[in-house]
Amino acid sequence: MRHWHWLIEWDTPTLGHIKAIKRVVYSGRSKYQDIIVIETYEYGLALVLDGKTQSTEFDEFIYHEALVHPAMILHGAPRKVLILGGGEGATLREVLKYGSVERAVMVDIDEEVIRVCREHMRFMNEGVFEDKRVSLVIGDALDYVFNTNEAFDVIIADLSDPIVEGPSYKLYTREFYSRVGEILSPNGVFVTQATSPTNTPETHAVIYSTARSVFPKTTYYHIFIPSFEALWGFVITSKTLDPRGLDPERVDEALARHGVKTRFYDSIAHIHMFSVPRNLREFIERESRVSTFDNPVYMPA
Amino acid sequence: MRHWHWLIEWDTPTLGHIKAIKRVVYSGRSKYQDIIVIETYEYGLALVLDGKTQSTEFDEFIYHEALVHPAMILHGAPRKVLILGGGEGATLREVLKYGSVERAVMVDIDEEVIRVCREHMRFMNEGVFEDKRVSLVIGDALDYVFNTNEAFDVIIADLSDPIVEGPSYKLYTREFYSRVGEILSPNGVFVTQATSPTNTPETHAVIYSTARSVFPKTTYYHIFIPSFEALWGFVITSKTLDPRGLDPERVDEALARHGVKTRFYDSIAHIHMFSVPRNLREFIERESRVSTFDNPVYMPA
Amino acid sequence: MRHWHWLIEWDTPTLGHIKAIKRVVYSGRSKYQDIIVIETYEYGLALVLDGKTQSTEFDEFIYHEALVHPAMILHGAPRKVLILGGGEGATLREVLKYGSVERAVMVDIDEEVIRVCREHMRFMNEGVFEDKRVSLVIGDALDYVFNTNEAFDVIIADLSDPIVEGPSYKLYTREFYSRVGEILSPNGVFVTQATSPTNTPETHAVIYSTARSVFPKTTYYHIFIPSFEALWGFVITSKTLDPRGLDPERVDEALARHGVKTRFYDSIAHIHMFSVPRNLREFIERESRVSTFDNPVYMPA
Amino acid sequence: MRHWHWLIEWDTPTLGHIKAIKRVVYSGRSKYQDIIVIETYEYGLALVLDGKTQSTEFDEFIYHEALVHPAMILHGAPRKVLILGGGEGATLREVLKYGSVERAVMVDIDEEVIRVCREHMRFMNEGVFEDKRVSLVIGDALDYVFNTNEAFDVIIADLSDPIVEGPSYKLYTREFYSRVGEILSPNGVFVTQATSPTNTPETHAVIYSTARSVFPKTTYYHIFIPSFEALWGFVITSKTLDPRGLDPERVDEALARHGVKTRFYDSIAHIHMFSVPRNLREFIERESRVSTFDNPVYMPA
Repeated sequence: MRHWHWLIEWDTPTLGHIKAIKRVVYSGRSKYQDIIVIETYEYGLALVLDGKTQSTEFDEFIYHEALVHPAMILHGAPRKVLILGGGEGATLREVLKYGSVERAVMVDIDEEVIRVCREHMRFMNEGVFEDKRVSLVIGDALDYVFNTNEAFDVIIADLSDPIVEGPSYKLYTREFYSRVGEILSPNGVFVTQATSPTNTPETHAVIYSTARSVFPKTTYYHIFIPSFEALWGFVITSKTLDPRGLDPERVDEALARHGVKTRFYDSIAHIHMFSVPRNLREFIERESRVSTFDNPVYMPA
Repeated sequence: MRHWHWLIEWDTPTLGHIKAIKRVVYSGRSKYQDIIVIETYEYGLALVLDGKTQSTEFDEFIYHEALVHPAMILHGAPRKVLILGGGEGATLREVLKYGSVERAVMVDIDEEVIRVCREHMRFMNEGVFEDKRVSLVIGDALDYVFNTNEAFDVIIADLSDPIVEGPSYKLYTREFYSRVGEILSPNGVFVTQATSPTNTPETHAVIYSTARSVFPKTTYYHIFIPSFEALWGFVITSKTLDPRGLDPERVDEALARHGVKTRFYDSIAHIHMFSVPRNLREFIERESRVSTFDNPVYMPA
Repeated sequence: MRHWHWLIEWDTPTLGHIKAIKRVVYSGRSKYQDIIVIETYEYGLALVLDGKTQSTEFDEFIYHEALVHPAMILHGAPRKVLILGGGEGATLREVLKYGSVERAVMVDIDEEVIRVCREHMRFMNEGVFEDKRVSLVIGDALDYVFNTNEAFDVIIADLSDPIVEGPSYKLYTREFYSRVGEILSPNGVFVTQATSPTNTPETHAVIYSTARSVFPKTTYYHIFIPSFEALWGFVITSKTLDPRGLDPERVDEALARHGVKTRFYDSIAHIHMFSVPRNLREFIERESRVSTFDNPVYMPA
Repeated sequence: MRHWHWLIEWDTPTLGHIKAIKRVVYSGRSKYQDIIVIETYEYGLALVLDGKTQSTEFDEFIYHEALVHPAMILHGAPRKVLILGGGEGATLREVLKYGSVERAVMVDIDEEVIRVCREHMRFMNEGVFEDKRVSLVIGDALDYVFNTNEAFDVIIADLSDPIVEGPSYKLYTREFYSRVGEILSPNGVFVTQATSPTNTPETHAVIYSTARSVFPKTTYYHIFIPSFEALWGFVITSKTLDPRGLDPERVDEALARHGVKTRFYDSIAHIHMFSVPRNLREFIERESRVSTFDNPVYMPA
């Protein structure tokens, strides 16, 4: 049999990834984006938004563990957590693994993505939206952050990339990060997905330099996501705690103390992610541009 | 302009990478393989053998530094180095950076690859084949290793993958590794490329378990190669020195002492590569098959 | 925007057609095949079975008019018509345009294709299945033809291609055509789709030589179908009427007399289809193999 | 083996043809265009200019016979022939088959295409450039036509398509056709390739309506070219002879009289090409725009 149904994900007009589609599980369009759920041969079910793979059955645990756990463990005992985006529910799933969490607010603009994932990708959200600690807000993360006066111990930005005219680019600016700083509790930690340091290194570096212009103790870390066929980047920061000051040897101990089970993340994975090779370090740290409301930095289209 | 000339690299029949070809610099066929040199948009010049990208102008330094330097530094003061494969010349280039090296033997079966790279990809081999320390042998690495009685401080296997009926699969077997052990000097170090731990995890794991069946101090390490859009794996071993015993903090010092300049590799990159996240560690260490002449383990075709 | 959702239709492993998918309207699998209905950019809605475009909104009229009208007009006054296959309903739609038709039996094995087309591609079958002259049989065309003892004026084979181990190859054999001859009325006409004379010229030629081995007055004709990006072939035959004996000038008159409106087919289109250039004529007429139950001729896989 | 080297020819950003490349025979760039000669699996050697297949070993005879012979036979006894474009040499090859031809001038702007075809695609031009009747001019067809005062019996425009900012769009305008009329001998015939009536129907129709605005006896004809996977269109015209007035039955006789051997073209092929089905006829004849120097009509980019 020759495969005839394909997803081509473009990094640029001259570079892409091609995956055969075994089955279309769901296909539709919300107010904000094209949504398809497909079954792939290598990665099982995959959620694809506007042609970009967001999460797959095979490896979503890597992305979600990498996004959530360093921030939770850096804080130490988070009680209140705010998730911006995260429609699949898996970021919430990781957050709820911590017994210390008393309240988790998740703000996502696209109700349809949540509905589709609850129906077709239950492995990412089984039970989480029914958890009594959870408060789900359908709305714009920007509005929520500027209008709330609640303080959070950990804030996690699990957002779409800052593309031109996209819904998210303001959520990667100095103004936004300043406001995030205001609603973080004194030892609060903020982490954001920060695009791919290899596919869009400039965007990644600007997110880092923007966060650093607000929070002095900022750093970045990276992990390879098989279904993205790329390194993925994160930026983590706090007003008081230095992410580089966390002794990685203590990660295993902290996970055990919280009773958190992981498949990817542990002390060694933490060391791996936070040890960025020389060429990438030099590239990222050379960047000095700061993204602002008036002068945002976009991903190349 | 719509791009019309493409390279599609297949990981499997249902998963691939698609790159536009800007220009064909060379196209031909040797006794052993299809050889093309193309100019790409993202990675500059690329050597592609039988449809697989081997090295690109943009990022070959990552692969070659990752392959060569941990072994050289683990040994400490290598005088005699044997390279199996490595037709582009860049492995040799990295080896020759060490002033301690007095003799470097490179054995490659495909003279045509060497000729094409010397003509079209000089950035990988400028001057190296003219270096008086170098002895170039055109021939089968298997024959060379079984027939030489010279001892080497470092042996580097920069070979094509162990595919069914390919020319290389015997170079990933217990018999071959046993013979490598016999021609290593007492503190000699052996390192081999070990396929991608994410694309072909079973093959990678078997190479590790095969080496471990011969050398007790074996380990594996990984690095992301942008133009491969994948993690790449290596297996490193020695009869006497434990690769895990090397204090990574000393890598920078050792590079400085040898006067070796690198772009990617340093102490932090070393830590990164040797710190393999939990899920991959568990997968690799679970493998117990050993590849032998009679019962070789191949890469899935 | 870069398109990311694609259909690749393969003629061979080294030749294909690539179409962007705007929207997946339906995706499923029947007992017999993968069924998808997609919206394309150039051709509107398209029914795709096992990765092969069957009919599109933009140009299905060409195929269906070419299949049906030459046979209907050659007969002159068909009262009873048998359609084998034709699940979309458009072959039936063309047949029912003739006021002379009193009874049209359609036999298709895949009820699911009919259901999907009735729900999602109504432009091909609006009202036809409700027409009182129509009798729809869900079943195997082979069984139907061997078991009926009814005589038909026109028999139309609108079947899937004769692929190895496919459900249809017996419907292109001498035995089948002999039986078709037995259930044709004295001036009855038989027409079958006959694969592409340019993509699969040998298969096309064997269908012709097989029909000719049963019916002496057989001929072939061709038309270009834009969404197939290929010529398509048909074989038409009768026990008594010579398809080449039909004066094409009379086609317009006959269509007018029957009150049949067409978009593609008329006297000039008839001349076009039945005038096959020299190279194709010579290729087709050189073929002497005959497909039989015991020794079927398949399409290259 | 999975094929990894591909040509994708785009009709639109959402529709294309994909062919595996077996071997790159030549790759380069002239002052005007990218030139590659590849070996394909289905069509043998192919000349590809700026990503568009121009001619293949397998089926170039169809295009070149269709372009040349109707015009030559309509004239009856051409002595002087002018070819505009036609770098491969195959149009010239067909023209030189007529013993009546005393002088054939070929004007092509791209010397490099001619050189590459003479070296790598000899089947299209063996001996033709050495023929004493031939005069080869490297230059712009527009300049040549406006500057010559020689009269020609047949003028053949074998040019690249009229794309925006391309070198050819002026060669499809009323002004150009008017000048062509001035250098045609009294019974002279002009024929031009006229793009694909199915891929770019508007462009095809405008070429026809432009020619018709100058020459009252103009018509169009079409043929399927397998390697283009499309119908191809031509426009033929004369000041005095009606192309529709040529009795196709006389084509075979005329070919025999001139001693011209063909593989595709004969009386029946002539009928086929000039009998255009209703939907295409109606589309083409509805067009009234005329392309001019000031207001040219381009192909959609």
